[in-house]
Amino acid sequence: MAKRILIIGAGMSSTSLINRLLEQSEALDLYVQVNDTNLALAQRKIHGHPRGEALSFDALDKDIRRPYLQNSDLVISMLPARFHHLIIEDCIELQKDVITPSYLTAEVKALEDKINQAGILVLKEMGLDPGIDHMSAMKMVNDIRKEGGKMLRFESFTGGLIAPESDNNPWNYKFTWNPRNVVLAGQGGAARYLQEGEYKYIPYHRLFSRIKPIEIDGYGEFEGYANRDSLSYRDVYNMKHIPTIYRGTLRKKGFCEAWNAFVQMGMTDDSYEMDNVQGMTWRTFLNSFLSYLPDETVEQKIVNQLGISQEVFDKIKWLGLFEDTPIGMEKGTPAQILQKKLEEKWGLEKGDKDMIVMWHRLNYEKDGAEHEIHASMVVIGEDQDETAMAKTVGLPVAIATELIIKGVITRKGLVLPIEPDVYEPVLNELEVCGIQFSEKQLF
Amino acid sequence: MAKRILIIGAGMSSTSLINRLLEQSEALDLYVQVNDTNLALAQRKIHGHPRGEALSFDALDKDIRRPYLQNSDLVISMLPARFHHLIIEDCIELQKDVITPSYLTAEVKALEDKINQAGILVLKEMGLDPGIDHMSAMKMVNDIRKEGGKMLRFESFTGGLIAPESDNNPWNYKFTWNPRNVVLAGQGGAARYLQEGEYKYIPYHRLFSRIKPIEIDGYGEFEGYANRDSLSYRDVYNMKHIPTIYRGTLRKKGFCEAWNAFVQMGMTDDSYEMDNVQGMTWRTFLNSFLSYLPDETVEQKIVNQLGISQEVFDKIKWLGLFEDTPIGMEKGTPAQILQKKLEEKWGLEKGDKDMIVMWHRLNYEKDGAEHEIHASMVVIGEDQDETAMAKTVGLPVAIATELIIKGVITRKGLVLPIEPDVYEPVLNELEVCGIQFSEKQLF
Repeated sequence: MAKRILIIGAGMSSTSLINRLLEQSEALDLYVQVNDTNLALAQRKIHGHPRGEALSFDALDKDIRRPYLQNSDLVISMLPARFHHLIIEDCIELQKDVITPSYLTAEVKALEDKINQAGILVLKEMGLDPGIDHMSAMKMVNDIRKEGGKMLRFESFTGGLIAPESDNNPWNYKFTWNPRNVVLAGQGGAARYLQEGEYKYIPYHRLFSRIKPIEIDGYGEFEGYANRDSLSYRDVYNMKHIPTIYRGTLRKKGFCEAWNAFVQMGMTDDSYEMDNVQGMTWRTFLNSFLSYLPDETVEQKIVNQLGISQEVFDKIKWLGLFEDTPIGMEKGTPAQILQKKLEEKWGLEKGDKDMIVMWHRLNYEKDGAEHEIHASMVVIGEDQDETAMAKTVGLPVAIATELIIKGVITRKGLVLPIEPDVYEPVLNELEVCGIQFSEKQLF
Repeated sequence: MAKRILIIGAGMSSTSLINRLLEQSEALDLYVQVNDTNLALAQRKIHGHPRGEALSFDALDKDIRRPYLQNSDLVISMLPARFHHLIIEDCIELQKDVITPSYLTAEVKALEDKINQAGILVLKEMGLDPGIDHMSAMKMVNDIRKEGGKMLRFESFTGGLIAPESDNNPWNYKFTWNPRNVVLAGQGGAARYLQEGEYKYIPYHRLFSRIKPIEIDGYGEFEGYANRDSLSYRDVYNMKHIPTIYRGTLRKKGFCEAWNAFVQMGMTDDSYEMDNVQGMTWRTFLNSFLSYLPDETVEQKIVNQLGISQEVFDKIKWLGLFEDTPIGMEKGTPAQILQKKLEEKWGLEKGDKDMIVMWHRLNYEKDGAEHEIHASMVVIGEDQDETAMAKTVGLPVAIATELIIKGVITRKGLVLPIEPDVYEPVLNELEVCGIQFSEKQLF
């Protein structure tokens, strides 16, 4: 009898996952059920495949979801991270394996003993970031350790960007993912990391000025800003005593300097509603973050008060923020208003492709000498369904599913993809799909 | 029979209030009960006065406090603002008048109908700021309106500072009030105000660089940074269409530029616990907010990375933040750690006196011409009990109490001191106590 795979959530990041499992469904004898609150979306993703079925039940209602979970052999939850523990609690009772691409939450971590007692597999952080980052890093780190090397530095940066062939605006950026998350990126606490044994903290308002330049062969110049918490990866990667650990987000060169102008003005603040939004133009919106100086234009004030370069000025001008046209909103926080303009200007055009870039730098000591390796992965989307994001999030989940069905991955318990028996076969199959790292030993 | 006044809370800001009411107790036939969780403190404040009584009941326990409220003629709540609605709910049932110096909260505002039905007086915002600011401003504004003037601008700044005779450190600042509030001042949202009809928003990280210089005759140069919300005062002061309204906090000149260095580094952040606090020295604490640059000293880095002046550098150095001595804490947020050092260096010495400064600027149009008035109040503390803060918070409450007992203030309902029948007699009596404004008509 066919193995029944239940995928909960048919959003953007499920496309490649669903396509891949349907492609493999004959060979592996799978029956793929896809559930979404939007039935039409689930149907479109299944596109009439004989081994696929679109469902639309309320996955947040325990009584409703339970028969579907009961009736499946393996559950893939593509829900937001905060809901996973609900699904996993049921799967513990029903003894079903679960895979999700998203972060291990405290609620799920608290279920670890019950997961072990049930003897099921709960495979978490099996997407891109977290996911491919863990697997590629741990493979390199374990190879270094196997040869007697001692880790000195681990730096890792990932970015969801626009592909070079679609990169046609002065920001070198478009929204290839949730715009709100991009506008609010970095808020909610200082970024912390460790450099040469020194703890370092960067407050939000300095995040986009304390950036790191990164060059990737064939793809040009990038820059990285620090993620919230690099330090917790010391435990995950078993690097408790590493002197330098730094994780961040990649942008094309020049982005951060310009974005920093918005941060400095307070234009990314989502904590309060602005006044008189109905009467606001883009120019008055911008002006409301600058001092009152009746003898200077808004253009002069932004240059003088923020000390921005011509390049940054041009980027802001290109967005249309100096124009005296109505913003056309009833109400909004600064972040919501800024997001509206950015969505107008950074939206994907027909045929635009996205790009995922991941870059690692590892330094280690071996035989008394220091060595350095860089590794980079670049994935370009095929179209606006099979995006680079959908592929890099969904394919690791799909491949892990196949490997469990085939009996290659046999672990049980609460698992992250940081051990060779999980990451080796997944990385091998990702390589077949064209998702691979190119490594460079510098010294 | 003597009128029984119940004062809940015998902390720093109750000293002048209690002393004044005890002084007046014979003449007005008062019996003054003072309650505090710390009985010894209440006893010390009463200092054996025959018309005083120290109590120590749990004012947050409804059943315990109720008989005390029942047994009093007027209740003065010096509790933190968030507890006032509890006291007021009881006073509605028991039909007792209440006075408090602190802000009208949403919870108390919601009780307005019940207060009116009960026919009691709840007099709020009857301290310094809010309190004296309202009374002095409304007196000036109403005088202008009476003569046919139209308000164009209202600016108002208040500061709790160190008196000139005790001002002997390079920051020209000492903790004369709750240190934690000083360290966290301005956090929690952008400051908003209105200037010449333009809404303006200042994010926290720019608050201490967008300052206003203010000179006060006889007391030298000050500077003001914006308070969180100036706009809500348009309603309170009935100035709905005023083009400029700006309220702020006063410091001595040069303070904000130096404090801004801490804000820029993220050193006032109270949202996260730092790592390895046990092993931290003041120098490593400072260094953790600066980039890693092995070829520069911490001193060079702070100058280069923040672009601070020699004056600011000297102020930071005077605090001892470059010293490689242990901070001596087990754990802490950046703000908590910074506060420890500041309490060591900014603590009051024996004999130090505090100073309250309030400054208003009013512009108005009359007979086709614009006019401007400045008004300033400076109050110096007598000692470390009868501080300027205790006097300016407590005396308005005490005077209002006396005026209610005497039948001069006869209003009922939820009242702020913004109408002449309340502010006129209170301001007159404050003047007798030496708390008065000097006005200057500029044009």
